[in-house]
Amino acid sequence: MPLSTIAFDADDTLWENEQIFHLTEQRFRELIASHTKIEDLGQSLLETERKNLRYYGYGIKGFTLSMIETAIEVTGGTIPARDIQEIIQAGREMRDHPASPFPHVERVLKSLTGDYRLLVITKGDLFDQERKIAQSRLGGYFDDVEIVSEKTAATYRRIFDQYGDGPGRSLMVGNSLKSDILPALEAGAYGVHIPHALTWAMEQAEEPLDHEKFHQLQSIQDLPDLIVALSS
Amino acid sequence: MPLSTIAFDADDTLWENEQIFHLTEQRFRELIASHTKIEDLGQSLLETERKNLRYYGYGIKGFTLSMIETAIEVTGGTIPARDIQEIIQAGREMRDHPASPFPHVERVLKSLTGDYRLLVITKGDLFDQERKIAQSRLGGYFDDVEIVSEKTAATYRRIFDQYGDGPGRSLMVGNSLKSDILPALEAGAYGVHIPHALTWAMEQAEEPLDHEKFHQLQSIQDLPDLIVALSS
Repeated sequence: MPLSTIAFDADDTLWENEQIFHLTEQRFRELIASHTKIEDLGQSLLETERKNLRYYGYGIKGFTLSMIETAIEVTGGTIPARDIQEIIQAGREMRDHPASPFPHVERVLKSLTGDYRLLVITKGDLFDQERKIAQSRLGGYFDDVEIVSEKTAATYRRIFDQYGDGPGRSLMVGNSLKSDILPALEAGAYGVHIPHALTWAMEQAEEPLDHEKFHQLQSIQDLPDLIVALSS
Repeated sequence: MPLSTIAFDADDTLWENEQIFHLTEQRFRELIASHTKIEDLGQSLLETERKNLRYYGYGIKGFTLSMIETAIEVTGGTIPARDIQEIIQAGREMRDHPASPFPHVERVLKSLTGDYRLLVITKGDLFDQERKIAQSRLGGYFDDVEIVSEKTAATYRRIFDQYGDGPGRSLMVGNSLKSDILPALEAGAYGVHIPHALTWAMEQAEEPLDHEKFHQLQSIQDLPDLIVALSS
């Protein structure tokens, strides 16, 4: 059965995202450094984020709240309120950062549209993700955009059944092995991993190198050729 | 054309919500009162929320960030970090509040299921809303749950076209005239307003009393009779 549906992760697959979190975290560390002796602030922040995942899910607002909480904790409550206001401001500026598509993305989407049903499957905050899709000006290429709170095999099965012709005729493209590739393979779809320079610690996983439906590309510009090869 | 699709707002229509925000705001005001001479803290918070809407959208996380920002502002930056930690904690406890369906809700859904396509159309934070739908144990009654960032006439048109037989055969039930009723009427659907004791200042609007598809009920238990009357 030939491929009919190609789904894309959004953050760090279609446009830069992790780098913006990374830069904000740097700003956070510089702000806090003078108030604490704790050196590994990144590790403290990651632990707070992990603990808060069940309260906040993914996205800028939860990240901002976790930065504030970490700042209070690592300074033993001595951080001045003005610095907390600075953290809130840093969080808001993340939202002002434009979602600019990576090189080749628009050309690849243009070449696939018409021949395949194109979807976005992205995890995170509804409000953040809708803004980024609008800003990217890529929305028109997609038949549907699914913003979900978690990416499990069941998530992919449901979406590929509802918007495509089932997982067997579907392909998922993304930068996160843990969220984009492994659960899509488990659902029975193809999984095409395009690594990104920065991957959040919580998104790391082993490469399923021996899975017959797993593929890895250095750049999204190689995707159309791979799809042709898989379809022939 | 008879009705085929009945859509429900969630917060303050299927279960209590505004009261939890209200109680948290009270706790916030008590916490801040000793650090400021500003008396109308509720008004200050509302102004911050309004200003932040374009950054945060709706939901608990944005509300928590707005409380922190207001606390810093109204105390001229003198609020201790420990009190900010208390605000973060109050925000998290909102999330632990169970979404218990209002009286009659489950019985009404049970009586309609099978005869009508039932939808939830709710605005807000994806993460919050999915949790509440799961907690409420009402999820199984609905053919689809749409969590959207804004409720406009276009939103209702798209959903009633995609999941129903168009707005003309659809009915929207909700407590907010501004978000549930006026845009649904504008889309061409019926709008059934069930007022709730507390309505957030940003959700208030005039009643469209002379619109032929506008109806008002004191309780959701009267909905099945209204639907029968409209269908005959």
